[in-house]
Amino acid sequence: MKIISTVKEMQKISLALKTKGETISFVPTMGFLHKGHLSLIKIAKQQADTVIVSIFVNPTQFGPNEDLDKYPKDFKKDRELCENEGVDYLFYPDVKEIYPENFQTYIELSKLPKYLCGKNRPTHFKGVATVVTKLFNITQPDIAIFGKKDYQQFQIIKQMVKDLHLPIKIIGGEIIREDDGLAMSSRNKYLKSAERESALSLSKSLKLAEDLIKKGETNLLLVREEIKKFIESFPYTEIDYISTVDPQLLTNIDNLPKNGFLLALAVKVGRARLIDNQLIKKES
Amino acid sequence: MKIISTVKEMQKISLALKTKGETISFVPTMGFLHKGHLSLIKIAKQQADTVIVSIFVNPTQFGPNEDLDKYPKDFKKDRELCENEGVDYLFYPDVKEIYPENFQTYIELSKLPKYLCGKNRPTHFKGVATVVTKLFNITQPDIAIFGKKDYQQFQIIKQMVKDLHLPIKIIGGEIIREDDGLAMSSRNKYLKSAERESALSLSKSLKLAEDLIKKGETNLLLVREEIKKFIESFPYTEIDYISTVDPQLLTNIDNLPKNGFLLALAVKVGRARLIDNQLIKKES
Repeated sequence: MKIISTVKEMQKISLALKTKGETISFVPTMGFLHKGHLSLIKIAKQQADTVIVSIFVNPTQFGPNEDLDKYPKDFKKDRELCENEGVDYLFYPDVKEIYPENFQTYIELSKLPKYLCGKNRPTHFKGVATVVTKLFNITQPDIAIFGKKDYQQFQIIKQMVKDLHLPIKIIGGEIIREDDGLAMSSRNKYLKSAERESALSLSKSLKLAEDLIKKGETNLLLVREEIKKFIESFPYTEIDYISTVDPQLLTNIDNLPKNGFLLALAVKVGRARLIDNQLIKKES
Repeated sequence: MKIISTVKEMQKISLALKTKGETISFVPTMGFLHKGHLSLIKIAKQQADTVIVSIFVNPTQFGPNEDLDKYPKDFKKDRELCENEGVDYLFYPDVKEIYPENFQTYIELSKLPKYLCGKNRPTHFKGVATVVTKLFNITQPDIAIFGKKDYQQFQIIKQMVKDLHLPIKIIGGEIIREDDGLAMSSRNKYLKSAERESALSLSKSLKLAEDLIKKGETNLLLVREEIKKFIESFPYTEIDYISTVDPQLLTNIDNLPKNGFLLALAVKVGRARLIDNQLIKKES
């Protein structure tokens, strides 16, 4: 595995691979890798000749009071994990390399970022869309893989790729969970042991909603109310949102549709802001 | 020459050419081609194996009270001109093809569009940056050529390509003028015969400034004042801006710098909004 730190070298390698007719799959990450990331890398391995993983904690997707400075890092472990998964190139640039002086070009979507996480993180997806486009142009992938825990991000990237005509296939990797149900996240590291039980309120809420729908509930407003009460019954929790939305448009839904809906949650547990989601259908 | 009207077909052709190792040069236009456009196509011919020209009157770069509906068209003549210049592919999509339902991704620069034309056309360069990125991804060029009459556009495209790491070389084509000095523009068609003399106030202002600098003037504020009086002496003229700026940053300059400055003008003559510009140095 080669570690590449400059845009110029990474792009030169990628363009040379493309000229040789090799296919490239790409997994962008912010590092501190867990089994969720590794599941994406495994998909990448199956999909193309060459696998590129990037590790870059992107400052433009963090708000002013968010955890940019505290975001967990462990490059040595990340490098080992990537090596073990058979990654070919690890792209590991510093911030000045991606955002040099006078950088000023941003990509923004006008609709999808208005919902869910975008409401309380108004510049987050602008930062995501911008850095992902940059990374795509640097690594020239045929296929890119994103985790569905960040469901809104996944939908935004798909829409952006379509709108900008990027010749890249976007694949979503399923949410990977701890044995007790907690969705894997680098931010789980922030959880104190006393908070860990409360963190399960998210995945348990998904089950609760599924059960309510199975029992015949069709009023999603009531489902959201039940989940709200449930999560509030755990200590250390502070709800950001509990949303039932159209899985493509991310617009609010109050009555159970035939094709199902997405239940998406964001809850602060201690200082960890956690998210989780699930597609729920009547006959799921 | 092949005329292509769908994104899918154009991109398929471009990607197939790239796979074969052929180079592509690209000239994006809004049609109603004149000798300025043809000079860009001639550069394109010299620079790559395959030349793609696009004709697309991009609605997102027009403001609400601008001339989108009146923008001149002559596809039959454009097609002939392109054929005569040896263009290989003419990409001629309709608006729905480029902006389908639910389109929502835009590219915006935070600095360069604040100056010159961007002041009175606040969404213009967002539309330009967005459509050019889309056209780049569709036509996959190695080289793209833009006319320097739209100097601010040229600088914005270069900055955007750098910021987004697009592997494309941007070349600027010099301003092409009528025999009397009027910069070629599709919008010259709007000029009534009585207004034609007044349209020359722009190119004559460039000469006036050059003469003032040659004579030792170093106060660009005074140069702008002289030009203002000069243009106002012509009937039918309404000044949008007379600016002396840094050629890269487009920021205002009041004292003649060693490396010169850009004089940029926008003047309405009748219903034609005309622009012109020139780099001016002490020893030019």
